[in-house]
Amino acid sequence: MSYKLTYFNLTALGEPIRLILHYGKINFEDNRIEYGDDWPTVKQTLPLPYGQMPILEHDGKLAHQSLAICRYVAKLAKLVGENDWENLEIDAAADTVNDFRQKIGQFSYEKDPDVKEKKKEALFGEILPYYVEKLEEQIKNNNGYLAAGKLTWADLYLVGILDYLNWMLGKDLLEEAPQMKALYEKVRGIPEIKAYIDQRPKTMM
Amino acid sequence: MSYKLTYFNLTALGEPIRLILHYGKINFEDNRIEYGDDWPTVKQTLPLPYGQMPILEHDGKLAHQSLAICRYVAKLAKLVGENDWENLEIDAAADTVNDFRQKIGQFSYEKDPDVKEKKKEALFGEILPYYVEKLEEQIKNNNGYLAAGKLTWADLYLVGILDYLNWMLGKDLLEEAPQMKALYEKVRGIPEIKAYIDQRPKTMM
Repeated sequence: MSYKLTYFNLTALGEPIRLILHYGKINFEDNRIEYGDDWPTVKQTLPLPYGQMPILEHDGKLAHQSLAICRYVAKLAKLVGENDWENLEIDAAADTVNDFRQKIGQFSYEKDPDVKEKKKEALFGEILPYYVEKLEEQIKNNNGYLAAGKLTWADLYLVGILDYLNWMLGKDLLEEAPQMKALYEKVRGIPEIKAYIDQRPKTMM
Repeated sequence: MSYKLTYFNLTALGEPIRLILHYGKINFEDNRIEYGDDWPTVKQTLPLPYGQMPILEHDGKLAHQSLAICRYVAKLAKLVGENDWENLEIDAAADTVNDFRQKIGQFSYEKDPDVKEKKKEALFGEILPYYVEKLEEQIKNNNGYLAAGKLTWADLYLVGILDYLNWMLGKDLLEEAPQMKALYEKVRGIPEIKAYIDQRPKTMM
């Protein structure tokens, strides 16, 4: 019944899964791959269904896709909703955070300087303020959480990728988002999560 | 207990939800919005949580995010897995199809002609062949379906957006994908789905 999570030795898309597993006190092997010059070679040795991490292995089976893995481990950790509609709200919140992450990534990973400058204007001028305002409102309307008025895996998804979002943006999103900041601190203050964060490897993001 | 689905009068991201609802013989109002010059004005009158459709209304509640809605209605239609791991595989398959859709969309919706040409090269030269080969292999290994060796909502998601993918690409993906083509025809041959498709509005995509 053991689990093995394989991801870069970074937070980013692996961290929400790690947070959920630690929250649920679920035993797992935290297999961390260094992202270095030899990554293309190392990649060939890993069983990645569509060339991407994270992957989760369990009982001889293997799964990919970070949000799908989050949802699965959230069931083990009892971070899901009480009924189908609550789970719909939780899924929608996580997908919205993921949309936001992708929009930031499209700017951050853009290589062409002119294109990047245009994307920066749209991101900082429109997209970012829009999402921050909406997310703040959503957290306010959900008792300090993203969905269903209580702590769910959508919150751990957001908190788990926030450092990565800030790294991509080169600024701290929480400075102008008091609701999100309170949620971030609340989740990181949960004893199981705090204990993990205090001892996790220090990485660039 | 009635449902109301609001989306453009197009297939695209609304169609997988419509297919799942019809498959499950679930009564719903198929509220179709014309995408015309007045869309910005019409949009202001709709209760869209993050400015996007589709949305699903039920019992005075409202939800957004197409994949989350698909997963919810799939539970009603009994198109989900038998256990948590099967659902993980189904979710991962749907997310992979969605990744593929987004990569096609990033090319299709690009406005700058030079940037679009570069994206076209990457898409048609690398991304498309990669995904088609992987998806073909996955369908072959899953008894003719995307996941769990049986018909699930991931299949209806793929079949539901295929015409949209082809419209964005300007070519028929199924020409070089016999496994996907067989799955497409099998799903569209299901009596409840065939009956719906035969009478649905004819739209540009």
